[in-house]
Amino acid sequence: MSKHLSKNTNSTSKVPVSTNDQVIKKFKKLQQKQISVEMLFDNIISCDTVALSKGITLIESTQKTHATKAQQLIEKCLPFANNSIRIGITGVPGVGKSTFIEALGTILIQQGKKIAVLAVDPSSTVSHGSILGDKTRMESLVRSNKAYIRPSPSGNSLGGVAQKTRESIVLCEAAGYDVIIIETVGVGQSETAVHSMVDFFLLLKLAGAGDELQGIKRGIIEMADAIIINKADGDNVKRAREAKNQFKKALHLYPIAESSWQPEVLSCSAIENTGITEIWELVEKYITLTVENGFFYQNRKQQNKFWLLQTIEEQLKSSFYTHPRIKKALQAKIEAVQQHEVTPFAAARLLFDLFKE
Amino acid sequence: MSKHLSKNTNSTSKVPVSTNDQVIKKFKKLQQKQISVEMLFDNIISCDTVALSKGITLIESTQKTHATKAQQLIEKCLPFANNSIRIGITGVPGVGKSTFIEALGTILIQQGKKIAVLAVDPSSTVSHGSILGDKTRMESLVRSNKAYIRPSPSGNSLGGVAQKTRESIVLCEAAGYDVIIIETVGVGQSETAVHSMVDFFLLLKLAGAGDELQGIKRGIIEMADAIIINKADGDNVKRAREAKNQFKKALHLYPIAESSWQPEVLSCSAIENTGITEIWELVEKYITLTVENGFFYQNRKQQNKFWLLQTIEEQLKSSFYTHPRIKKALQAKIEAVQQHEVTPFAAARLLFDLFKE
Repeated sequence: MSKHLSKNTNSTSKVPVSTNDQVIKKFKKLQQKQISVEMLFDNIISCDTVALSKGITLIESTQKTHATKAQQLIEKCLPFANNSIRIGITGVPGVGKSTFIEALGTILIQQGKKIAVLAVDPSSTVSHGSILGDKTRMESLVRSNKAYIRPSPSGNSLGGVAQKTRESIVLCEAAGYDVIIIETVGVGQSETAVHSMVDFFLLLKLAGAGDELQGIKRGIIEMADAIIINKADGDNVKRAREAKNQFKKALHLYPIAESSWQPEVLSCSAIENTGITEIWELVEKYITLTVENGFFYQNRKQQNKFWLLQTIEEQLKSSFYTHPRIKKALQAKIEAVQQHEVTPFAAARLLFDLFKE
Repeated sequence: MSKHLSKNTNSTSKVPVSTNDQVIKKFKKLQQKQISVEMLFDNIISCDTVALSKGITLIESTQKTHATKAQQLIEKCLPFANNSIRIGITGVPGVGKSTFIEALGTILIQQGKKIAVLAVDPSSTVSHGSILGDKTRMESLVRSNKAYIRPSPSGNSLGGVAQKTRESIVLCEAAGYDVIIIETVGVGQSETAVHSMVDFFLLLKLAGAGDELQGIKRGIIEMADAIIINKADGDNVKRAREAKNQFKKALHLYPIAESSWQPEVLSCSAIENTGITEIWELVEKYITLTVENGFFYQNRKQQNKFWLLQTIEEQLKSSFYTHPRIKKALQAKIEAVQQHEVTPFAAARLLFDLFKE
């Protein structure tokens, strides 16, 4: 306010400025602007959503000083994290992800749970984030103080976007959210990234789209702990049942997963709010099974190791491919191997020697 | 030469040696031992299988001088390569891979084709190679001068084994083999490696094993251009038909592959020699389709690029993980992230800094 005022005063220039009072006010304002990690942390574990948002903004910032603070904040939050159920949800645009999340979230809130919705969507810089538009659609969640919704961080590399979301989970858990839903529209390899940060992975499909393929990518079905046929309402009910049976048969052809969980196929209508409770019961069944057989925590440990090695390997690749000598030579070598002038292995050796020089 | 001789003289020391005749014989022997790249190359493109075997041994050698010669040989062969049909075959032990290859190979030879059988099996150092034992089983192929069978190269790293096999393909093609069959029992990620070096990927399954899962790994079905239900004979015929129908339905749930090829399911009895001709007709149908739509050569280019980048990335990882400072610090960091004491990303940053120091 006073800043705004003084600015105004400044712009009119002739008026004398800065009484003692004004200076103090400015100082306080500046102090407030300085993000204190301690204060943020205290407020986050008291479940202050403004602090949580500020914390996530810190994580998403590209400024170096912010990055250091973000790491301090995450480290403080870590002992309070790791205590939620993390659910990944994927499906092509139009499958009804936001309506589904709204329906599921509402039931969870009725059960007394607090839920956070995050997203991994590397394209969101272009599309301005699928979830941003969804915010207006997830009306009752937005209005509830038991729900926290955060759009996908911006960024072009999946690795970067995924890391920010992964780190935001820690803050949300420290803030006491019981269920964290990670949504993705499945650009690039984002399903793999989401699958590697959640406990339960859910594939949403359309009923009655005629073609059961619907452009889903290879490998996604094998990742799913459950396939949900959405929009099983009205004229779609019969086709949804057929799709459900087809997928059930297909899933039986797969080997049993490491979790010993046999993936299930359910149908629901997010818009008519039918079948949603059953889906949550399925998640609970999974959690019970995997906590009992030890897979639940083992999997989280494995996921952490995965992200450690994954991050290292991404950094190694980045240092290689952004190296000036490599940038200059790589394309010619790719063309040479594609024209069968040299074997890929000989070309790799040459490039690697060039890098080490 | 004389050095060798004098050494000999030295060691036997008392006996007078070296008539002129003996010297000449020894000289000739040694000359023969010196592997001349030019001679090998000339003999390989004249389809001399002894030379081909020597060439592949050179590729498989771990000696540095051999590696250089191997690269020279491969480079000479490259312009004569790339003209075969490369077929990958995978399936669990006991599914009847060798009998199947024997049956398929025999038909191809009857059609006037020459076939080479190679293998990728990183465990072969321990098991002494699945294909080695198979050599005695592939009786008619072994006896035919139209077939060349080579066991899996030894080695513990899949990358190394796969590279050697990939390079051996070049030599086999230069030697005029029309069809190269690459077999794998599917240890580790070997199916992915084989899938990335062949035109057509074939998954062999058992009929009537009751459980259709049979321990196949996730992701394999999605790689297959054809699923073959083997041992569809005797009491198995009915169950084979059922399995075939099940897989057909399952495959229809997958998105169409980049090749526009719709994977098919066939059954056969390798031992009774039924259904084999149909399988080869299917391969030919695939080749016709993909040559016409351009995928065939595009895919080979992509595969070459894949192996280039893959090799680089393996070398980068190897230089990281074998670094003394990393070897010392890595395990503690893995445990720290698994105990949630630090985020995977922070730990990765620390390790990477340690590496760059």
